[in-house]
Amino acid sequence: MKLAVLATGNIANKVTQTLVQIKELECYAVASRELSKAQQFKERFGFKKAYGSYEEMVCDPEVELVYITSPHSHHFEHMKLCIEHGKNVICEKAFTVNAAQAREIKSLAQEHKVFVTEAIWTRYMPSRSIINKVLSDGLIGDVKAITANLCYNVCHRNRVSNPTLAGGALLDVGVYCINFALMHLGSDIREIHSTWQKIDTGVDGMNTISIQYNDGRLANLTSAITAKSDRQGIVYGTKGYMVITNINNPSLIRVFDYDDKLIKSVEVPPQISGYEYEFIESVKAIGEGRIESWSMPLTDSIEVMTIMDQIRAQWGLRYPME
Amino acid sequence: MKLAVLATGNIANKVTQTLVQIKELECYAVASRELSKAQQFKERFGFKKAYGSYEEMVCDPEVELVYITSPHSHHFEHMKLCIEHGKNVICEKAFTVNAAQAREIKSLAQEHKVFVTEAIWTRYMPSRSIINKVLSDGLIGDVKAITANLCYNVCHRNRVSNPTLAGGALLDVGVYCINFALMHLGSDIREIHSTWQKIDTGVDGMNTISIQYNDGRLANLTSAITAKSDRQGIVYGTKGYMVITNINNPSLIRVFDYDDKLIKSVEVPPQISGYEYEFIESVKAIGEGRIESWSMPLTDSIEVMTIMDQIRAQWGLRYPME
Repeated sequence: MKLAVLATGNIANKVTQTLVQIKELECYAVASRELSKAQQFKERFGFKKAYGSYEEMVCDPEVELVYITSPHSHHFEHMKLCIEHGKNVICEKAFTVNAAQAREIKSLAQEHKVFVTEAIWTRYMPSRSIINKVLSDGLIGDVKAITANLCYNVCHRNRVSNPTLAGGALLDVGVYCINFALMHLGSDIREIHSTWQKIDTGVDGMNTISIQYNDGRLANLTSAITAKSDRQGIVYGTKGYMVITNINNPSLIRVFDYDDKLIKSVEVPPQISGYEYEFIESVKAIGEGRIESWSMPLTDSIEVMTIMDQIRAQWGLRYPME
Repeated sequence: MKLAVLATGNIANKVTQTLVQIKELECYAVASRELSKAQQFKERFGFKKAYGSYEEMVCDPEVELVYITSPHSHHFEHMKLCIEHGKNVICEKAFTVNAAQAREIKSLAQEHKVFVTEAIWTRYMPSRSIINKVLSDGLIGDVKAITANLCYNVCHRNRVSNPTLAGGALLDVGVYCINFALMHLGSDIREIHSTWQKIDTGVDGMNTISIQYNDGRLANLTSAITAKSDRQGIVYGTKGYMVITNINNPSLIRVFDYDDKLIKSVEVPPQISGYEYEFIESVKAIGEGRIESWSMPLTDSIEVMTIMDQIRAQWGLRYPME
């Protein structure tokens, strides 16, 4: 399947190192607002075409799937452009700036009958089934709560702290914590409580999010762009607990019994980088004529954006483009 | 120093195994509401006197220090009894049912010039100075946030889930999480947000507590009596993070750099059980004529109770005796 990469920043460079190794994909075109950047990227990774505008790229009839890597602030506009030109889309997280945009993308995708999915890699990874197996085997008993954290000290990077790019800890890293909660506890939510630390640029440098479910279960999440955390996700059960090393790319799943004794330890299977799964699944789904992925249906992307809208409303944090 | 143990339940039995090994103490008297229980306890641990009422015990002029192990609900009444009889007191956590009681205990202690302290063992342990050294050495940079959890599945025990005994996760185990936050970030608090899961008895089976400090730092805490957690406390800094194994009795302090590489690992020194430190410090403080301990001044006990009052007010959880 012929792939085009839209925007050539840090994440595009990182992920494309994996894309060139995926046999299901042909790294066909790359587009940047600056032709020279597109050409550099094309040369670096051996793409066939380089475009100096996104509009030119989506007019290329050979492009079958566009991978959108622009900042959060521009995802809506770029997805819309691709969808209206009949291109299938895999778009980086956070999916959009808010839920209204996400809902509109879903409508557009249905209208134009193109595949659209969010590239939140943790949803597509084999760790999902390893974790689900531990839970369904009852190794930790009934799940009552989860905690997860993802903090990096990266607020000096413009993309993550600039409000005009929809920056802040919530949309940049908190999105993984929220996905971790939803993957384990679902979305039958009663209440959300949150706190934040506002940094100079006006966005959240850190936040805490507590999600209370209607069945009484709790998720307690911490994310930041101003500190480093251990990145663990922990699932607490009545008989023991499960520790997931690095919720941003699980490498190890350990299960402890009530006496804190390690009773199971599973390393995730060897992988290129972890980015491959979202692309392989997208190619398969498109091949089957689907317009959504199995692992991250658009309803779930909308749900995550709705939660983030609710949290930002609690804080009074609105982005300039809203 | 001649010690009396007030009440002979589970914690009294557990801690007394350590008390008999402390050279600074003489295990002198034990009191229970049932004489037979006091006598059994006396025989088991080799005490000199057994009393069938607390009133008789506090009238024994030889008793110098009373260790109160009754349920939370009765701490106030029992501390008052001891203080008014001129006895020094070390009282189990939670210190009282609420802050009003804690403030009254402080006044009474000052009035009667007796030593009173809360037996929250984590405050007195050598792990305190190990942790403080890591932080002052700057190994993890500036501290921005902490997370901590303490969850056990113990709600079948009457003492921990009965509202008439001031049960619930908050007073029983959450108190350690709150102390963990205050020990690292102090008490200059702007706001507290919390969620809870109410269990059949009417108390909290689980809770999440987010503390927002005036300097922007955050503490995110999770506690439960309905599930098992990994009991870790983690301090997030700008350059790395510190992981404390078991916030309810730290055994290992590990420091990781920004790349998650272990750069320091300190096991806490060998100890009897960890209970010894609060008693050794109390004996020393009393010997110096002090009426408060260095590690857990009454202001801090009042602060912890004030925070727990505020949290329970958010939930609408009042105990029958309030």
